[in-house]
Amino acid sequence: MNHVEKMLDLDRKHLIHPHLPKNDDNRVIFARGKGCKLWDIEGREYLDATGGLWLAQIGHGREEIAEAAARQMKQLEYFTCFWDFSNERAIELAEKLATLAPGDLEMSFFTSGGSEGDDAAIKTARYYHTQRGEPKRTWILSRTNAYHGLAYGGGTATGFAELRDGMGPHLPHVAYLTQPNAYRTYYFNGQNPTDFCVAELEKMIASIGAENIAAMIAEPIMGVGGMVPPPADYWPRMAKVLKKNGILLIFDEVVSAFGRSGYWFAAEKYGVTPDMIVTAKGISSGYIPLGAVIMSRDVADTVREGHGYPLGYTYSGHPVACAVALENLRILEDEDLINRSNEMGGYIAEQLSALRDNPCVGEVRQAGMGIGIELVTDKESRQPLPDAAMAIPDIIREETGVIVRISNATNICMSPPLTMSREEADRAVEAVCGVLARVRPDGTV
Amino acid sequence: MNHVEKMLDLDRKHLIHPHLPKNDDNRVIFARGKGCKLWDIEGREYLDATGGLWLAQIGHGREEIAEAAARQMKQLEYFTCFWDFSNERAIELAEKLATLAPGDLEMSFFTSGGSEGDDAAIKTARYYHTQRGEPKRTWILSRTNAYHGLAYGGGTATGFAELRDGMGPHLPHVAYLTQPNAYRTYYFNGQNPTDFCVAELEKMIASIGAENIAAMIAEPIMGVGGMVPPPADYWPRMAKVLKKNGILLIFDEVVSAFGRSGYWFAAEKYGVTPDMIVTAKGISSGYIPLGAVIMSRDVADTVREGHGYPLGYTYSGHPVACAVALENLRILEDEDLINRSNEMGGYIAEQLSALRDNPCVGEVRQAGMGIGIELVTDKESRQPLPDAAMAIPDIIREETGVIVRISNATNICMSPPLTMSREEADRAVEAVCGVLARVRPDGTV
Repeated sequence: MNHVEKMLDLDRKHLIHPHLPKNDDNRVIFARGKGCKLWDIEGREYLDATGGLWLAQIGHGREEIAEAAARQMKQLEYFTCFWDFSNERAIELAEKLATLAPGDLEMSFFTSGGSEGDDAAIKTARYYHTQRGEPKRTWILSRTNAYHGLAYGGGTATGFAELRDGMGPHLPHVAYLTQPNAYRTYYFNGQNPTDFCVAELEKMIASIGAENIAAMIAEPIMGVGGMVPPPADYWPRMAKVLKKNGILLIFDEVVSAFGRSGYWFAAEKYGVTPDMIVTAKGISSGYIPLGAVIMSRDVADTVREGHGYPLGYTYSGHPVACAVALENLRILEDEDLINRSNEMGGYIAEQLSALRDNPCVGEVRQAGMGIGIELVTDKESRQPLPDAAMAIPDIIREETGVIVRISNATNICMSPPLTMSREEADRAVEAVCGVLARVRPDGTV
Repeated sequence: MNHVEKMLDLDRKHLIHPHLPKNDDNRVIFARGKGCKLWDIEGREYLDATGGLWLAQIGHGREEIAEAAARQMKQLEYFTCFWDFSNERAIELAEKLATLAPGDLEMSFFTSGGSEGDDAAIKTARYYHTQRGEPKRTWILSRTNAYHGLAYGGGTATGFAELRDGMGPHLPHVAYLTQPNAYRTYYFNGQNPTDFCVAELEKMIASIGAENIAAMIAEPIMGVGGMVPPPADYWPRMAKVLKKNGILLIFDEVVSAFGRSGYWFAAEKYGVTPDMIVTAKGISSGYIPLGAVIMSRDVADTVREGHGYPLGYTYSGHPVACAVALENLRILEDEDLINRSNEMGGYIAEQLSALRDNPCVGEVRQAGMGIGIELVTDKESRQPLPDAAMAIPDIIREETGVIVRISNATNICMSPPLTMSREEADRAVEAVCGVLARVRPDGTV
């Protein structure tokens, strides 16, 4: 067996891939990455228009990050941040996040990713109310098509049935509101989407009882659900109702933060300050597993009363992870990548506007370098394409080498490195438009 | 402000430490680590007899690991292993784990730590039964004093009330058996501990109904619970009952694997092959967040039928994490650290046998480089020391610079790097024995 055959064989024998059917023998084994380009073990070149899983903000294979990681590993690779133990990189990153996050969100609990963070945020919200003498506040409000990781807490709040079926019973006291995807007008009974969503929230609070609700957890811009920014008045009005009822607001910004949506945090875009922000992905551009739950002063102080914050993950405040994140944030700043995200994202959206005439494209959405292309059977009914559409990204990749993703069978998503060049953007746009031009209303190409 | 004052100030303002009360202003901020030694930002030297959180198998600050990480970051820092995407390091590590793990545990799902792994294992067990047409098999059996991380799934199985209180309701269908700590004779109504535990398991199965039980999750040697190896016949007999009833056995070897307990996997010690092993910590010696859920062929094949394995974490199969783990495993092999764990662990236990005459020491337990010293008010009642004993590790550290840990207020735990020298072991033993000689039955020193 040559190297390629050997790798394929060992992969099939030993590696479990999320969401890959057992009888699917195909593999794309990457060997190298640089900027927005990737190469597989056979030497074929790809253009990464997904930034891995929405996270490679600074692009692949950056030497500065490798050197920052190696330096920290040689100096102090790890000690715990449990109890009174600490390290310089964790402190420096916590401070940096306090300066970047909105309002008084100025204390960080570090995790190794979004799933750990979402579970921590839900626990923190419930514990906050317990500490304040309202232990009955246990309900968590989430939304259909929401994505909050796959540990049992956040995974229950995740609004995709196929990610929960057959693994229950799930976390009790989680309820789902309608997602504010304004394009899908039939979600809202002909009403204005924000009016509908706010009224639904009020109705749900009345039905469960405000005194039983801990928090609402939500992506300010839905990511896995199809890169869906809500109407501009959605968050200000939702946040007002929550505040009035003493319900905490947790923003899951695992996808949207660190420039992905054109801001350090998407919360800024909507002028809303949540009580907690869950981050991961872009915080390290994926060079190392890391996440943070950034809390308001009130939440952080309340949950540290008594015997202290009751949660801890082994790698919380990992010195190397924090060193990588600090270098990543430095690059985001020095290369002005937040502004670049808006500029290049705007350019891509503009180029994609040619899709307006495509009968299977409902709308093109864009926030920074997060782009969602809504696919429909026809523009009148606005119904999603059938499951056959799931194959579209594979077809684009096989024909053009451009990697995009499909969410929910109805959205082509692009979330390239914020460093993508205009030439690369053109190549990605051309690839997507070329294949979508041949999509039929049954989802096939 | 000088550097030290600045770090202290920023830490208190911005960093949330697990289990540190809000009004505790003390911090130990580490700056550097090498082998078993650590130095704080004031230059004070410490001896790390805990290996961080039971994980620094190869010792701190190893250059080989830093170089392996940097090399991989420059080459391919990240792409997802979702769907058909893959990378060489993930494949190589999955293959390596298949050769090390017992029986036909030969497929790996990668995580970024134990908490993600425990939730994944519980979901996998339930999904396995759903896929086989027994969707009612949802109950998870755990044990008091068990530790299975703090995401909502594993965190519910974690048998410490103080890590769950005020954050419920928790995952439904989790039940707790008695922990097999043979020294605590009063757990077992005067019976032989294994007889008691096996009978209790049979009773619990009868009461819940075998047809409703998915899995038992358990540390083969309890870690956080106080480094407690069960009686030699416990696992063989428990496993037999589980198998007879179609209940999967999940070993949480986050602490016990990769040499910590003197074996690659503690499962070997007891001659039992579980259906899944959850690992983390020692797999990378903590140099980078990583874990794996290693599954039997049957489990892996069953859960990949249909639309494929239904779980996925962003960093699953992270190329840098896997490269670090491969280099870590190479070092464990090349430096013969599994054997060394038994030798040096045995030596430490021998040196600690002087504690036999200490009226507050019940017993000294050892498996590889995992040592538990059970503290009691008196040797007759075998009652745990009061909470005042929680301060003992701080006293040892302040007086001698040696870092040990206390679990559950009743166990002094040591889990040093497997590379610890005899001279360092002597220093650790002397520090522990010196302070324990002054412990009083009320837990104070």
